[in-house]
Parts: sequence; C-alpha cells; structure tokens
Amino acid sequence: MNYSMITYIIGWILSVEAALMVPSVIVSMIYGEKSGWALAVTILICLVIGLPLLKKQPTNKVLYAREGGVIVALSWIMMSFMGALPFYFSREIPSLVDALFETVSGFTTTGASILSNPEGMSKGLMFWRCFTHWIGGMGVLVFLLCLLPMTGGGSHMNLMKAESPGPSVGKLVPKVQSTAKLLYGLYFMLSLMMLGLLLLGGMPLFDSLCTTFGTAGTGGFGIKNDSFASYAPHLQVIVTIFMILFGVNFNVYFLIYMKKTNDAFKCEEARWYFGIIGLSVLIITGFIWTNGCYTTLSDSFRHAFFQVGSIITTTGFATTDFNLWPSIPKTILVLLMFCGACAGSTGGGMKVSRIMILLRTMFRELSWNRRPNQIKRVYFEGRPLDNELVRSVTVFLTTYAFIFAGSVFLISIDNFDMTTNFTAVAATINNIGPGLELVGPTQNFSIYSNFSKIILIFDMLAGRLELYPMLILFSRDTWRKF
Amino acid sequence: MNYSMITYIIGWILSVEAALMVPSVIVSMIYGEKSGWALAVTILICLVIGLPLLKKQPTNKVLYAREGGVIVALSWIMMSFMGALPFYFSREIPSLVDALFETVSGFTTTGASILSNPEGMSKGLMFWRCFTHWIGGMGVLVFLLCLLPMTGGGSHMNLMKAESPGPSVGKLVPKVQSTAKLLYGLYFMLSLMMLGLLLLGGMPLFDSLCTTFGTAGTGGFGIKNDSFASYAPHLQVIVTIFMILFGVNFNVYFLIYMKKTNDAFKCEEARWYFGIIGLSVLIITGFIWTNGCYTTLSDSFRHAFFQVGSIITTTGFATTDFNLWPSIPKTILVLLMFCGACAGSTGGGMKVSRIMILLRTMFRELSWNRRPNQIKRVYFEGRPLDNELVRSVTVFLTTYAFIFAGSVFLISIDNFDMTTNFTAVAATINNIGPGLELVGPTQNFSIYSNFSKIILIFDMLAGRLELYPMLILFSRDTWRKF
Repeated sequence: MNYSMITYIIGWILSVEAALMVPSVIVSMIYGEKSGWALAVTILICLVIGLPLLKKQPTNKVLYAREGGVIVALSWIMMSFMGALPFYFSREIPSLVDALFETVSGFTTTGASILSNPEGMSKGLMFWRCFTHWIGGMGVLVFLLCLLPMTGGGSHMNLMKAESPGPSVGKLVPKVQSTAKLLYGLYFMLSLMMLGLLLLGGMPLFDSLCTTFGTAGTGGFGIKNDSFASYAPHLQVIVTIFMILFGVNFNVYFLIYMKKTNDAFKCEEARWYFGIIGLSVLIITGFIWTNGCYTTLSDSFRHAFFQVGSIITTTGFATTDFNLWPSIPKTILVLLMFCGACAGSTGGGMKVSRIMILLRTMFRELSWNRRPNQIKRVYFEGRPLDNELVRSVTVFLTTYAFIFAGSVFLISIDNFDMTTNFTAVAATINNIGPGLELVGPTQNFSIYSNFSKIILIFDMLAGRLELYPMLILFSRDTWRKF
Repeated sequence: MNYSMITYIIGWILSVEAALMVPSVIVSMIYGEKSGWALAVTILICLVIGLPLLKKQPTNKVLYAREGGVIVALSWIMMSFMGALPFYFSREIPSLVDALFETVSGFTTTGASILSNPEGMSKGLMFWRCFTHWIGGMGVLVFLLCLLPMTGGGSHMNLMKAESPGPSVGKLVPKVQSTAKLLYGLYFMLSLMMLGLLLLGGMPLFDSLCTTFGTAGTGGFGIKNDSFASYAPHLQVIVTIFMILFGVNFNVYFLIYMKKTNDAFKCEEARWYFGIIGLSVLIITGFIWTNGCYTTLSDSFRHAFFQVGSIITTTGFATTDFNLWPSIPKTILVLLMFCGACAGSTGGGMKVSRIMILLRTMFRELSWNRRPNQIKRVYFEGRPLDNELVRSVTVFLTTYAFIFAGSVFLISIDNFDMTTNFTAVAATINNIGPGLELVGPTQNFSIYSNFSKIILIFDMLAGRLELYPMLILFSRDTWRKF
C-alpha cells in the first residue's frame, strides 16, 4: 500500500476543500451572518491538517487498483467529515451524525435531508450545502486530476475508474488529464447556461445559484421547505430540461463540441434514456390526469415531466407530493430510481447502460437455453462487448442486491413500515433523495436513529462510488501486508 | 422442433393426471359428495384428449435443450388447466381464472389462495387441492422419467434440467431414470413417516393426509381458514420439523440411505441452510418476545420456529399473523422468501446454494478489484466451480430481477400499496404463499383483478420452473424454423 501517496492526495483534497469553502464565507459576509465564522474555522482546520501533508512529495507515484479504490473512498469520507463541521460548529445542525448525513448527502448528490425546515438555515451555510452538490457531481478527484502531476496514465486511470460512474470509463481524448479538463469545461459551460436562463426567468441570484448547483450535480437539496413547488411553472420547466440534460452521458456533449453531431445522435444509451423518459412521462400523465390528481392536462404533464426528470436523473427535486399519486405512477418512479441516468453523467442509480447490458445478457442466456452451442455476444453501442465487462456488470447487480438487502434489514430496526425502509435505501444508494411514505417528498430522514443514518451514509457513498471503493476500504484483506 | 415428441409427452401427462385424480374421486365417494362428478368428468376429458396422443409413438425420441424447456412449460400449463376444471365444473370456484390460480398455486407448491373460506370446500376437491402440492413438489416430469422409455440419457437430462430446482442438476446415480426413481422413493418414505407421526399425534386421517401433501411438497394450502393456528402445539412442531426436512437437498438423504453419513454431514448447502434457520429463529424469537407479541418465551420460540421453517422452505403455512410482528422479524421473513430452501429439495425461492455462489462471486470480485491479476475461483461444496456455472447463476439473478420488477409494475395497476404488491410477487415467484399487508397470512389473493392474477400465475410457474422454460415458451424465436 502506497501510504505516502495516500496521505499526499488527502492533503490535496483538504486544501482544495478549504479553497472551495471560500465562496460560502463570502456569501456569509455579504449577508452579515455569524455562520461565516463556522466556515472560516473549518477552512483553518483543513489547512492546518492538509498543508503539512503536501510538504513531503512521495517518491513512488504509482497507484494500483486497490490504492485507487482506497484513496477515493478515504477522500470522500474525509471531505464529508470536514464539510460537515461548519453545520456542527454553527449549531445549525446540532448533531454530528446529522451534519455528516447532510454533507454526505450533498457530496454524493443524493439530496436526502434531515432538515424539516431548510428555510431556517443561514444563507452562507445554505450556499455551502448546495455547493457540495456541484463539487460532488463531477467528482473531486477528477478535479484533482486536472491539477496533480503523476507518472504513468495508469495511476490517473485507477483514480478515475474508482470515482467515475458507469460500467466502463471512456476517455474522451487519449490523455486522462485532458479528459478530466474537458469534462469540467463542459460541466462548467452547461451550469453557466442554466444559471443565465434562470436569471432571465426572474429567479433571484441566490436561488438561481443554489438551484443550478443542485441541478448540475443532480443533487436535489431544496432551499425551500416545499422543494420546488412554489416556483413559477416556467422555472420548473427550465429545471426539468436541465436535470435531464445533466443526466446525459457527457460523451455526447463532447461529440457535439467536436462538431460530430451525427455520432452524438447515435449514442445508444442516450437514445434509450430519452425513450424511457418519454414513455414514463406519457404513462404517468395519463394516470394522474384520469385519476383527477390535477385539474388540467397541462398541469398533469408538467408535474409528470418534472418528477420523471427528477427521479431518473436521481436529482430528487419535487414540485408535488408524488406519494399521493396512484400506484402505477409511484411504481414507475421507484423503478426509475433503480434505472438511474446515463453512465458518464452526474446522475446516479444503476445507469441506463448497465440496465441495457443486463437486459441483453438475459436475452443471450435465453437463446443459449434454446441452442446451447451457439456463440453469441452482447452488443452495446454497436460493438460486441467484452465478456469480462458483461461479467462485471452482472456481478455489480449481485453486489448491489446484497448491499441493498442488508441495508433494508439493518434499518428495519427502527420499526418503520417496509415501503419507507425500502424506498429510503433505494433513495440513498441510488443518490436520489426522497423516497415514499415517511421519507416521501414532503418528509425528511430525521425520523431514523443514528445507527440507521450511518447505514444510509454508507449507502450514499457506496452508491456514488459504485460499490467497490467503499467495500475495498472496509475489507480487512486490503490492509494486509504482502 | 420435435412436435411428435411434444404431443406424445403431453398425452402421457394427461393420462397420468387422470390417474392421479382417482384418489380424490374416492374421497368424494366416501363422503358422498356431488363434487365427485366434477372430478370424474375431468378424468374423462383428460383421457379423451390424452390417450389418442399416445397412439402414435414418435420415431425420433431425441430432445434438445429448447424442446426440454418447451415440453416442461407446456406440460405444467396443460396440467394446471386440467387440474382447475373440477373446481370450475363444481362451481366451488366459479371463476375460471380463480380456479386456474388456485391450481397453479397448488402444482407449483406456492399455496397462495383466492379462497376466503377454504373450510367451505367439499372434501373431495380439498383432497385434490392438497394433492396437487404433493405431485408438484417432486415434479410430474421427474415422475414420468421413471416410466417413459427414451433413447439417450441426453433427452432425459434435458427434461430433468428444465424441471428440477437448483443451479446444477446432480445425478445421484449414473442413470437419470434410476435417479428419478430414487428421488421418488425417498420422497414417498419421508411423506409416509410424517403421516404416521401426525396420526400418532392425534390428527384425523383426512387432515393428516392433506397436511402431509402440503408439507412434503412445501406447498402450504391450509385446510382450515386459520391455516395452522388452531392445531395443537405438538402437531405444529411435527409440521415445522418436516417442513425443514423437505427443504433439505435430497442428495443428503440419498447419502444417508447409502450409509455415507459422514459425506451427508459435509453437505455445505445443508449446513448453511440449517445455520440460516437457527440464526433467524434466534433473532425473531428475541424480537417478538421482547416486544410482547406472546406471553411466554416458549410460545415466541414455537411461532418463530414455525414461521421461519414455513417461509424459508417456501411452504407458507402460518400459526400466527406475522403481519403484526415488528419490522425486523418481518424483514427477516421477506429476506428468507428470496433465499428459499436447498437446491434439489421440494422448496422454492432462489435456493441457498445460489445465494452462497452469488455471495462468493461478490467476494471474488472484491479481491479482483484489489488485485486484478490474481486468478481466483469460486468454491462451493469443497470444489472450484466452473466459470460457466457462476456466470449462469449471476444471469439467473438478473433475469429474476427483471421478471420481479416487471411483475410489480404490472400488478400495481390494481392500486394497492407497495408492500402488498412487492410481497405478492415475492410470495408467488418464490412459491411461498402468503405475503404481507393485504396478502398477509390472514388474507388472500382474491383482491387482485384477473389481469394481475394472470401475471401472478406466470410468476408462480416461472418461479417453480426456475424462469427459463416459461421464457423460452413465450419467446417467438423458439418457434422459428431453421
């Protein structure tokens, strides 16, 4: 285990986090809030721990797969712990576990909250809370990759693999570092476009910034108690469109940026993603309209469109209490929770590409059952997939199912009903935010005990980092000497 | 497609079913019930259709994998349809879909019922209803294998593979036909032992027979409205022990029969199976006792023991309304529904061996994530497993998850709550019987619409035949000419 490299990168993470907290301090100063002190003290702590770790440049800069996993998992935990301190120091979230839950929920772009009254939070801390979404959306290590000098591409790749969502990591350009820079560039541009449109639409600057952070990272922390219900319909539509755009594989934007529009439109994952959204919106609109949930067809459509976009991209904003919808629309939303957005986007869940690969693997098995001697491969994006990749996707589902079942079992100790527990785990491991029943869109996660909150914190991190980094960190075998 | 062989075997199935209905007619005659006529008419129909099909012996007796799947799926559907006719003709179940649901539930050893008052049923039909469990437990085609002359062992094997539960079919002795005979022999012996003990325990003959059928097949149709709650505690204990015994891999009994007791005790699957049962009973007893569900510790233990045995073996009898238990015991029961009994037993669910293989595959993946270049194999029963088998088990989970999600979605059209829909599918696809909430142990499945009942009928058959035969039957590609 390359310990000197681990501490070196943690040093970087802490220093970068200190820098990222500065805008929130400025917001606090503008509004003349005391909470700025809590942020300032945390910045100091980050620097006092972080800077000395940067002093000793490691001689061996090579990172193997397990070190990539350990570094990513440790970085996210450290980052979340430090990020939680301002909430705790300011007493705006008096419990440390709650503050950690909220921050992990922010960085992992889950958006599940323990706050019953987010409007009561000071502006500076609210800004920090929403900004964590924006940071977590693209990933901090991907950001570090733009800055850090490292030897071979292998080390970069092992970090990027561990942090990036999706069954396989595609490099847009040959060098990993340039890929990371390009991704952040696209992310920044799209965020800027959204911010401009919201401001044009008449949303106040502070609200626009926070909403953009939450949408770009597909996070979903609301700055209002009713999430997005009280904003004007045209603002809801802007947010819907951008939620869906941030759920698209960033490869598509890269191709458009490279003026290869034809190739962009050929992206199979994106086409299925839009297809699933279209079909879900249609069915849900039909059901909630005929069931009289809303008076007009256009209202039904707007709410269906917003909620589908919010859940499939795992953002988690809400314009209405979908817990009151009939069973079919609710079931569709729960299924979309598991589906998730595209790989290579800021969204969570299992990812459309994994679902497609799993479906096709199932069909292949079926034809093998018919004719065992046939050679058949699973195709995706027009190419036959490596059997190794297919295997890793099916094992991903297995691991996912075990973590899921274990979590539901452990949090059921709090004695809530099964739908609540089931959707609480679904909403955290898929990084969505709200579930159904007691953790529905008008409720929050404060009902759970500290024990269950820690389980859900684990699920959020495991979901964001796609299971293995967290499992590697906590398996004893990783730390054994050879 | 070997059509002549398909019709020939269907002919056999119908003739055998006619013979199997005779005992029920005798019961009807003893009690002087009119329902005997409904059974007699059905026997006639079976023979009129079945016997002519036997006239033409097929020249080509070779069966390929897909034909094995198609024959098994078709046989089970035909058998269920014919088996449903007596209920329909006698008007004791006036709806044809309901009668089919009840019969499929019987043959697949599910035990989910649409009857709110089973005690109102005539003795003859009740006997037939419970007898379907006994027939379905070991499988009709396995029974046919004892009788049917076929060419190569390959054809036998393809039938047995398609009908027998578990990730891989183990032949006890080199010849498939002898294996089938041995299995039925062991099944018959164990059933006889149980019947004797129940009679000794003071249970009336009719009740003893029906209970033995339901327990041996791990079916679970109750002959009383309260399932097993009103029987004496010592009878409940006998049933608990035999439920658990019928959930053990029959290889173990074969080894004991062959006086290889040491080898029998080495069976890894059975050891895990007993371990899971022990742990679950302990935890549940603790929770329901401390929560004051029952006054004495021994009552708590007895109910926990019975319900755990009933659910993990997917029998589905109940001595108490476990829907009223706290959340942790209920969640354990739901998890046990998915776990299921041992492969090669009469129980349903995913099977303990599959769960073990999946868990170990997950751990292997984890160690691959640490050290990608290591060669590691998954071990089970002391032997390294074929990668092909591991692959097929993970794909099984994938297929299972898709069928599960699709079914929950489709039956949610009836607008019941999510726990009801989720556990209704879990209880049918795993061949258990009762679920939670509106399909809990004191409720029944009559609340669902015909559409949903057909979905659940599909799930029961898919679960019993372990997914692929049903999917092969309904995929267009199977019927294409080459």
